[in-house]
Amino acid sequence: MKHFVSMQDLTKEEILTLVLQANRITENGVKPMLGQYFVANLFFEPSTRTKMSFIVAQRRLGIEVLDFASEISSVTKGESLYDTARTFESIGANLIVIRHQENNIAKKLADSINIPVINAGDGTGEHPTQSLLDLVTIYQEFKSFQGLKVVIAGDIKHSRVARSNAIALSKLGCDIYLTGMDSWHDETLDFPYITMDEAVEMADVLMLLRIQHERHQAHVALDHNSYLQTYGLTMKRENRMKKEAIILHPAPVNRGVELDSRLVECERSRIFKQMQNGVAARMAVIQRVLNQGGKFDEENFSQRQTIIG
Amino acid sequence: MKHFVSMQDLTKEEILTLVLQANRITENGVKPMLGQYFVANLFFEPSTRTKMSFIVAQRRLGIEVLDFASEISSVTKGESLYDTARTFESIGANLIVIRHQENNIAKKLADSINIPVINAGDGTGEHPTQSLLDLVTIYQEFKSFQGLKVVIAGDIKHSRVARSNAIALSKLGCDIYLTGMDSWHDETLDFPYITMDEAVEMADVLMLLRIQHERHQAHVALDHNSYLQTYGLTMKRENRMKKEAIILHPAPVNRGVELDSRLVECERSRIFKQMQNGVAARMAVIQRVLNQGGKFDEENFSQRQTIIG
Amino acid sequence: MKHFVSMQDLTKEEILTLVLQANRITENGVKPMLGQYFVANLFFEPSTRTKMSFIVAQRRLGIEVLDFASEISSVTKGESLYDTARTFESIGANLIVIRHQENNIAKKLADSINIPVINAGDGTGEHPTQSLLDLVTIYQEFKSFQGLKVVIAGDIKHSRVARSNAIALSKLGCDIYLTGMDSWHDETLDFPYITMDEAVEMADVLMLLRIQHERHQAHVALDHNSYLQTYGLTMKRENRMKKEAIILHPAPVNRGVELDSRLVECERSRIFKQMQNGVAARMAVIQRVLNQGGKFDEENFSQRQTIIG
Repeated sequence: MKHFVSMQDLTKEEILTLVLQANRITENGVKPMLGQYFVANLFFEPSTRTKMSFIVAQRRLGIEVLDFASEISSVTKGESLYDTARTFESIGANLIVIRHQENNIAKKLADSINIPVINAGDGTGEHPTQSLLDLVTIYQEFKSFQGLKVVIAGDIKHSRVARSNAIALSKLGCDIYLTGMDSWHDETLDFPYITMDEAVEMADVLMLLRIQHERHQAHVALDHNSYLQTYGLTMKRENRMKKEAIILHPAPVNRGVELDSRLVECERSRIFKQMQNGVAARMAVIQRVLNQGGKFDEENFSQRQTIIG
Repeated sequence: MKHFVSMQDLTKEEILTLVLQANRITENGVKPMLGQYFVANLFFEPSTRTKMSFIVAQRRLGIEVLDFASEISSVTKGESLYDTARTFESIGANLIVIRHQENNIAKKLADSINIPVINAGDGTGEHPTQSLLDLVTIYQEFKSFQGLKVVIAGDIKHSRVARSNAIALSKLGCDIYLTGMDSWHDETLDFPYITMDEAVEMADVLMLLRIQHERHQAHVALDHNSYLQTYGLTMKRENRMKKEAIILHPAPVNRGVELDSRLVECERSRIFKQMQNGVAARMAVIQRVLNQGGKFDEENFSQRQTIIG
Repeated sequence: MKHFVSMQDLTKEEILTLVLQANRITENGVKPMLGQYFVANLFFEPSTRTKMSFIVAQRRLGIEVLDFASEISSVTKGESLYDTARTFESIGANLIVIRHQENNIAKKLADSINIPVINAGDGTGEHPTQSLLDLVTIYQEFKSFQGLKVVIAGDIKHSRVARSNAIALSKLGCDIYLTGMDSWHDETLDFPYITMDEAVEMADVLMLLRIQHERHQAHVALDHNSYLQTYGLTMKRENRMKKEAIILHPAPVNRGVELDSRLVECERSRIFKQMQNGVAARMAVIQRVLNQGGKFDEENFSQRQTIIG
């Protein structure tokens, strides 16, 4: 695995390997890598969570961070992404992490340069490290994926997390359901649509998505409360969820829209746990593409077999 | 002392403890902390001096810095400060340093999250680390506070430094006087107002404030030279100051407004010394809230008693 | 050499010393400096390449980086550059690296503060570290400078690189020629102008300049293709170059304007090699002004003599 750009590219075994390694890091911590490595974080879209999560992961691994602020850089001089990336490679970057508004751009970049590329979210395409942290959070809860009912709820069409997760969880044997407004359905994902009322009773994992206001073509005036009542997670709906079911949300949360504000830190919410796992997930991915952190493929072979069943 | 948000909250002993520790750091240096710590610097207002001073303090202590640039982050997606702070806590921040345009926000944040919060200036409220560095600078000069005449001069109403200093210096036994334009008086501070001409003859410490143009409600067209002549420190007034008296200014200086430009680096000016002490003051505060740097409470007990008298 | 602000200031020996030290670093690597140093990077103009190159150089030397983003700092409060620089000095910076839109500002700053200043490009003045990396690249190729024919091509008038290079290469014994549009000639540089067609046949080193759109007084609507055909490096012209001749460009490249896009990574292009050398060049300069990295003056005396001849 030279790059990490899409869940689509990975086998079930490769995904599980990363889940187990990330989980191991949450339990045992991690040692800084030997030698001096540099990473170029190329973030062309705003992000607190993802960028800071990557930085913590990188610094815990002892990696030097080159922080590329696109708005004050040579991109304003019209330089292409390829030239920017090759520049970072030339000055000594060992790794590129990219977030960009254009679909599939991480893969294109990976095909054209010599250092590993990690996709930190591209357009409405994929967001595979976010997906991985969701998998880690689910694994910690259920120690298995086979047969779990996962409902992905909300703005599916504009969500790269939805895509990455649907692909990955399906490979791992989960049953995937989708729910949300008709106009946000995504025909490229072949999973059944249900209502939110059906969803809350059925789900082992209820995965709420952020409404991607910034990616909507026309600004749809959305009445927040009526959205919550029809498509969101109200207190009443939460009450009908299965005893062991958990709530996920990639954050930042639109409080009172995707879910009742009081549910953000409720007992079955794993929202802040997800963030915590995000750092470990990113460390596992970085170790993997840089061939660091031990031969974790071999090490967790038997554990992986148990999970796959 | 879990947080450091206000001089109001601290006892005389607690303040002196920090002053002595900061002074000790200026004399003996400091050792990096053991283990890896992360700090999130949440600066919602522009600042060179304060932010860079914190970063130097943090790096000298070996702390990893997460630099939150509010304008390019998820705050643009409408996320609340609480959610932002909880995010940083979740991804591994051990400490938050916050500067914000809203009064009292550091305290509110401190009450709602689990990691220590340091106030780096909130609205027209407090700026306690700036106050601490002023105290350190005064201590280095006089080795005592009891009975010192301190005049705080200028835009008192809009200054958080004035408030923090008036509170702290008064607790330490100084006699506080205020001077400045009538419209900038602050009725919530109960100290006598005098004229600048009285101030320069009486002061042991003349603490000039920055005119907070950016915090004035309506833009008052201020004639700089006439302001200097009436309310500022001219060469002539400086000449009438006591032999041992010192000049402080939190900077950035409006040269030729609060004081004659030639006085910025005059013999009795401690303006750049203040900046130097600022790093030590911030290191002392960070050590304190993270319970690092030795049991400096006990260590300086007798020294503190001498100062208190 | 306390500061590094201009190639004009340096002797042939001083320049060669830096070239050899930088080249040695590319071959043998470098050891981090002992003790904790801080650098303030004051970048008042956008730059990916230069700034990131400095940061990699600084981190490889183990130096702590204070990154000054002018747009969100006290400069918005009207603080002077001198006061900003003195602030960084006061809080512990051991070194300032400055890029600024104003000619000669690095030198002025160097004359007024106590810590070393490195010029990372000032207006249309000089860009001496870029020049040094060009020298290193030429040295690696030819192991000598005497009698080399160097043609500097393009927007000479607005290029600080052209100036620094013409000065330095001329001191080292190269024959300098200039080529470009009449309106971009620079009368302050006393070297012969030739046509691009003459240039490609004569040059050992063809040094293309970036068109400095952002520094042009009025926006000249430049037809890119006709510019390339008349003044740029086409495939056809490249074909007529001497066998051993190399192409340099400070980047970012305007592909299809200064040269045919396909030539950016052609066999005789050293464009990405230049970037790689840039890190070593900056490390050599930093070591020099901080008196680190060994007594490289003495160490390379005989090697220097050979080159000078």
